Amino acid sequence: MSEHHEIVFRSDVTVELVRHQASDADVIFAARVSTQGEQTLEGAAAGEQATERDRGLINYLMRDRHGSPFEHNSLTFYVQAPIFVFREFMRHRIASYNEESGRYRELRPVFYVPGPERKLVQVGKPGAYEFEDGTSEQHQMAVDEIKAACTAGYEAYTRMLDAGIAREVARVSLPVSLYSSMYVTMNARSLMNFLSLRTTREGTHFPSFPQREIEMVAEKMEAFWEPLMPMTAETFNANGRVAP
Amino acid sequence: MSEHHEIVFRSDVTVELVRHQASDADVIFAARVSTQGEQTLEGAAAGEQATERDRGLINYLMRDRHGSPFEHNSLTFYVQAPIFVFREFMRHRIASYNEESGRYRELRPVFYVPGPERKLVQVGKPGAYEFEDGTSEQHQMAVDEIKAACTAGYEAYTRMLDAGIAREVARVSLPVSLYSSMYVTMNARSLMNFLSLRTTREGTHFPSFPQREIEMVAEKMEAFWEPLMPMTAETFNANGRVAP
Amino acid sequence: MSEHHEIVFRSDVTVELVRHQASDADVIFAARVSTQGEQTLEGAAAGEQATERDRGLINYLMRDRHGSPFEHNSLTFYVQAPIFVFREFMRHRIASYNEESGRYRELRPVFYVPGPERKLVQVGKPGAYEFEDGTSEQHQMAVDEIKAACTAGYEAYTRMLDAGIAREVARVSLPVSLYSSMYVTMNARSLMNFLSLRTTREGTHFPSFPQREIEMVAEKMEAFWEPLMPMTAETFNANGRVAP
Amino acid sequence: MSEHHEIVFRSDVTVELVRHQASDADVIFAARVSTQGEQTLEGAAAGEQATERDRGLINYLMRDRHGSPFEHNSLTFYVQAPIFVFREFMRHRIASYNEESGRYRELRPVFYVPGPERKLVQVGKPGAYEFEDGTSEQHQMAVDEIKAACTAGYEAYTRMLDAGIAREVARVSLPVSLYSSMYVTMNARSLMNFLSLRTTREGTHFPSFPQREIEMVAEKMEAFWEPLMPMTAETFNANGRVAP
Repeated sequence: MSEHHEIVFRSDVTVELVRHQASDADVIFAARVSTQGEQTLEGAAAGEQATERDRGLINYLMRDRHGSPFEHNSLTFYVQAPIFVFREFMRHRIASYNEESGRYRELRPVFYVPGPERKLVQVGKPGAYEFEDGTSEQHQMAVDEIKAACTAGYEAYTRMLDAGIAREVARVSLPVSLYSSMYVTMNARSLMNFLSLRTTREGTHFPSFPQREIEMVAEKMEAFWEPLMPMTAETFNANGRVAP
Repeated sequence: MSEHHEIVFRSDVTVELVRHQASDADVIFAARVSTQGEQTLEGAAAGEQATERDRGLINYLMRDRHGSPFEHNSLTFYVQAPIFVFREFMRHRIASYNEESGRYRELRPVFYVPGPERKLVQVGKPGAYEFEDGTSEQHQMAVDEIKAACTAGYEAYTRMLDAGIAREVARVSLPVSLYSSMYVTMNARSLMNFLSLRTTREGTHFPSFPQREIEMVAEKMEAFWEPLMPMTAETFNANGRVAP
Repeated sequence: MSEHHEIVFRSDVTVELVRHQASDADVIFAARVSTQGEQTLEGAAAGEQATERDRGLINYLMRDRHGSPFEHNSLTFYVQAPIFVFREFMRHRIASYNEESGRYRELRPVFYVPGPERKLVQVGKPGAYEFEDGTSEQHQMAVDEIKAACTAGYEAYTRMLDAGIAREVARVSLPVSLYSSMYVTMNARSLMNFLSLRTTREGTHFPSFPQREIEMVAEKMEAFWEPLMPMTAETFNANGRVAP
Repeated sequence: MSEHHEIVFRSDVTVELVRHQASDADVIFAARVSTQGEQTLEGAAAGEQATERDRGLINYLMRDRHGSPFEHNSLTFYVQAPIFVFREFMRHRIASYNEESGRYRELRPVFYVPGPERKLVQVGKPGAYEFEDGTSEQHQMAVDEIKAACTAGYEAYTRMLDAGIAREVARVSLPVSLYSSMYVTMNARSLMNFLSLRTTREGTHFPSFPQREIEMVAEKMEAFWEPLMPMTAETFNANGRVAP
């Protein structure tokens, strides 16, 4: 017998920073091992912080694409977002993922609908799409259609569960607007690569046009990361937001 | 205006081997560079084939987990399967993917329904589920429910497109039973790891219980690969189907 | 002008655990997101510890090769070992490295010589070598030869530096017994893979015959890791020391 | 008893392209699966070539950093170069390596000495070194010193082998100028990343200052690759030689 849950519709995403060990000082210590060998260890062990004169070194590493010093750190996020967002997210291979499983548990009916600020009308050509606001009728129509489809998919799911069909089969009727949840662990280098491709960069050397919903996740991740590694974040921005 | 397509329901998956450069001989040459240095190059350049006496070397590499000689080859597959299969597939990070995009094109209405041989009833505990045949009523019910949900989702999709909603928004109403297509490129080591986790291994040191639909993809991939690298495939099986 | 340093000969290796965020509890929380979704977050945030009843779950993950829950953690080691050890170490690709650079700094004359307990005589065939103690004459002879070669190489290096030759050129005269230093960051899954290949496993399904000097590094790394993740380490051992 | 070999000194590197499956057409087909789905398969199977109008698509992929279409190809190189070059090379983790082993075979006495055109004198600061020609006295001195150190190291090696010391121990006396050999397999995306960091890029957004000897390897690899994927190579150059 399936559990009984009210269907919930959301237009936002959830990002929590569960665990982290990330600081500008670690970038400095990792970089200095190149030039100073064992002497860096004492500073690292003593918990020394990055200082103003370290800013130049971090900027140099970023600009000249010495990426490895940005890897000796770790951030674990807990993310709740629709499946269509996770599909894009998990194309990033330098990361660790554990996601809620529709094989092992009954899925909760939480679905995405576009919020009023979501631009709904696409103009232009592939690779350089621009989005414009839809009319309020268009927005209402999209919300109504998506709600109806999600409801139909979820009701089919629960009826199949009630009829004894395995969860992994029944779930195939659920739309990609369904929310899932995962832990994802990345280092700052991989995170910067993620941010470079999943936030909008216009007018830079390498423009980027992510789907808005994954950008919402990326922006929340960046908001957690930036105060942990302020010099790294600043030089990342100053160098066109291209990951080293 | 959306294109008009009849909804198609399938219960199988498509795998094509688009391109490959994979042979037992390459494993041998890569392994022999360890012990013979430059002398191996001539054999490799001359297109020498693996011989019976090479079988022992391949078995030794597999058993002692010397994995790198199995990496100097490449297989590119074209796969058509439902989104819920691709979601599992793309968790394999040592591979290259390009998938059809719901942002860049209008998606065709091809959906998965379980075939008559699909075991539908799950018994046992997480991690050691077993599946049993459902009744014919259960099967018919599952097919009917899934078809109805897919039809509802697809009709919502086309109505949104017709109303001028962007493809990337409208698609959120589509269920994970929708077929997608991709190119995936792997080397034999990564393929063996995929096979070890996505085909059933019972009674081995490391059992595996994949969902049947990704196993169908894995079996077709294995059928293409096995004749290309018969000694590698044989020793993979002989060593418990654990990738080196 | 080169700096003046006394030549030092060592027979050991140095491993420090600089930074870590690794616990059995993180494995549990990452695994439980599959079956419990968002409910796991509270436990993780509250710093809950792994309990006795979690041992079974960790063992199941290890045995069935569900590797991803072992990735949401991070260990940074500082290692000093000879170049020939680093050459083997850096073949492990799922790790982050920053090493002392002979291009950016003058290298210190610290060299490896085998200690009295190092077995010096190799018998058997490739892939199944065994080592036996050498005679004390053999040991003395090896130490003397290596010391003389290192001294010759280092004196050539300093004379070239004194003559104005660039460090990156002068260093080519230095032997692979030279000690280097690095930061290496790994997660527990990658570390277990490293340990499985770089410590001796005899009588297991998948035997391993590492060179003794890298095994010395691996043993020290394992000694730091084991108390941080005791259940993970225990089940790793109980399952043949094959990484999931 | 060690084999008897004359010591050889070289100043160049060897690169052979052993095997390859790489073309601009594959980039096109992989990219088009995003927008055309299954229709691309026929073109790929029919061996269609990239045409002039595909150049724009390749340039767009490069500029906007859509990297994955550049991964569905494979190049296997056989490289002979000094150990100090291999040490830098193997820091590139998205590649497959098999290298000659000093544990499994007796190493041949081939060593690197700088050629007359090698700039020997380093000026400037770390990260922005410039090199100037040395005097002919400096060059002669460097060659003599390196030859003497290599000869001393190699003679120690052979004497230890003759005394029954295991190869893996005796080799520690050998300098990093010793030539080794390996097979390395990469896809074009990883190769472009290698080229971007291991060839000199001055006056670009992201400058690069590799050691000359690894640049010699990179240049030879690039010379093999460029005619196989001419549009990819051209757009790589046109976009500042930053890998997508």
